[in-house]
Amino acid sequence: MTPDWVLNERLEQDSFWLGTRDGVQFRLMKDARYAWLVLIPQVPGAEDWHDLTQPMQSHLFALSMQASKVVKQALRADKMNVANLGNMVRQLHVHVVARHVTDAAWPNPVWGLGEATAHAEPEKSIQEMRDLLEL
Amino acid sequence: MTPDWVLNERLEQDSFWLGTRDGVQFRLMKDARYAWLVLIPQVPGAEDWHDLTQPMQSHLFALSMQASKVVKQALRADKMNVANLGNMVRQLHVHVVARHVTDAAWPNPVWGLGEATAHAEPEKSIQEMRDLLEL
Repeated sequence: MTPDWVLNERLEQDSFWLGTRDGVQFRLMKDARYAWLVLIPQVPGAEDWHDLTQPMQSHLFALSMQASKVVKQALRADKMNVANLGNMVRQLHVHVVARHVTDAAWPNPVWGLGEATAHAEPEKSIQEMRDLLEL
Repeated sequence: MTPDWVLNERLEQDSFWLGTRDGVQFRLMKDARYAWLVLIPQVPGAEDWHDLTQPMQSHLFALSMQASKVVKQALRADKMNVANLGNMVRQLHVHVVARHVTDAAWPNPVWGLGEATAHAEPEKSIQEMRDLLEL
């Protein structure tokens, strides 16, 4: 779709690929403390959400909302965090994080808090999330 | 519009009213360290963005994008943070924060970091933001 788009190295290193839907890559953060998705539009140069064309803005938003709703219900999350920050990694990416009042960071944001915990069975976690998101 | 919607007390206390557009309240956080907007849909009971009807989801998103774009340009921000967290205050609200690499929290998120700094001239700050956002 966009031949000159390349995934940011840090995003690639810190997350597993789940699937791609109409130019948006779904990834699972390598941190078993949270069900933490990152959605990345494969658009070269995009940093802020408003940098995208309106159709792509809306597409990324719709996918974020859909993921938020499905994950919240399946995991009985207490709250979803949906955010584009991008202070560390400028390549546009939207976090969709399931939060529980019992989780490691609650009620603080998840970013920059302690050390990530590796998934015990990454392939199982990946498959479960793919099934949930129909990827 | 929604007679039984009441603004959360903490949001009310921590921010100034800027204006309301089609059921979404724009407020300016009482923290002069950042240009920090909060957009709050006047929908009773809404906590997650996906709780809203699709038209209201999209309306809130469009207003967030518009604010993000206008504020970034006017303040020459380095990055915009657009986020619904709601871990502390559950009433649905979207943060739109202009970030500069020189700001107090950079590159960390702004939430929960240090003490808010009062605006030297709140009415001036409010009016500038109203003009910018055409409220």
